[in-house]
Amino acid sequence: MKSLRIPEATITRLSIYSRYLEQLDKKEIETVSSVDIAKGVGVSPAQVRKDLAYFGEFGTRGVGYNVKDLMRYTKRILGINRSWNMILVGAGNLGTALCMYREFRARGFHIVGVFDNDLSKIGKTIDRSMDLEVKPLEEMGEVIKKENVDIGIIAVPAKAAQEVADILVKNGLKAILNFAPVTVNVPDDVRVRTIDLSVKLEVLTFHLTFNEL
Amino acid sequence: MKSLRIPEATITRLSIYSRYLEQLDKKEIETVSSVDIAKGVGVSPAQVRKDLAYFGEFGTRGVGYNVKDLMRYTKRILGINRSWNMILVGAGNLGTALCMYREFRARGFHIVGVFDNDLSKIGKTIDRSMDLEVKPLEEMGEVIKKENVDIGIIAVPAKAAQEVADILVKNGLKAILNFAPVTVNVPDDVRVRTIDLSVKLEVLTFHLTFNEL
Repeated sequence: MKSLRIPEATITRLSIYSRYLEQLDKKEIETVSSVDIAKGVGVSPAQVRKDLAYFGEFGTRGVGYNVKDLMRYTKRILGINRSWNMILVGAGNLGTALCMYREFRARGFHIVGVFDNDLSKIGKTIDRSMDLEVKPLEEMGEVIKKENVDIGIIAVPAKAAQEVADILVKNGLKAILNFAPVTVNVPDDVRVRTIDLSVKLEVLTFHLTFNEL
Repeated sequence: MKSLRIPEATITRLSIYSRYLEQLDKKEIETVSSVDIAKGVGVSPAQVRKDLAYFGEFGTRGVGYNVKDLMRYTKRILGINRSWNMILVGAGNLGTALCMYREFRARGFHIVGVFDNDLSKIGKTIDRSMDLEVKPLEEMGEVIKKENVDIGIIAVPAKAAQEVADILVKNGLKAILNFAPVTVNVPDDVRVRTIDLSVKLEVLTFHLTFNEL
């Protein structure tokens, strides 16, 4: 599979479909229609069909999709038919919660290193079951190499985010998930996605304020 | 301002522009061009102009926008020229981190109640400085009324999310921010936005897998 000019929104929905298919599979449901998927995740059936059509022919008219096959396929497209090692910078409340976040592990994402430059945090154990201990930023390169890390997570305050992004880039990472509410600049060959926790709240307050139904 | 048929993506970016303008204002920068804003948040200048055009005429050709005015205006559009009270359900790691999340307060969002049905958590103080103590779900209605709460946050595991959404709706809330990685169904007059922490990771792994630059 190459030359993928897939809209970001389609990839995003594919991840949501994939999660839904996983739920169906756990309930031992074997086939599903685009209408069912659409209803389950809150989009239109046409959208589901259009999104899946980017990746070839699926399903049988009148029968629907095989849940297990489609789930495996979506995981392969998303690159999660394997596991990924990540490191996290910022051992504050949010960083600690992310280290303990079960859903990451369930989808094959493993935080294998936590870093902070706060001396009062270094050496602290975040997750005893995973032997995860906060380390100084200087040890990042070693962990990345040893553990084959591909993804870096930024969980520091906004004002420190760019500096941390620069360090992640200098250590060779090409994918960054940023939780700081600020845009970080990286070279063209590095991808950053930001999860700004306030943004969706402000979408809600916009609607509460102006779109009273 | 009414009849707002504004794309969700525009509202989302408006929230990001607003944050950026706030940063500029703190640095006492007085005027800014669409090119500066675009560069600062990582979109095209045409996009910035198009987004702002939904809300009327801004800026002076050749001079740019007045930072303070545009910041106030974006806040008014987003409905955050006032503060909002919220309650949160789920006093786990993520819920606790959200209660402590400074950026919410900085944007005028205040968590005034935390609820859980886990007896070992009820009575626990989350944030001493805010006198925030975990309460049983039965006390939710009282807190919502007393504190004029408009927004509910779901920070429980996926399998409990729908039940919690139903309780929030039953208690009259019209806006829900959902952190559970699952779609929750609500009546048409209630708005839900989901922040699924794994989705953006899977967008990154898609790119890592198929779009090697």
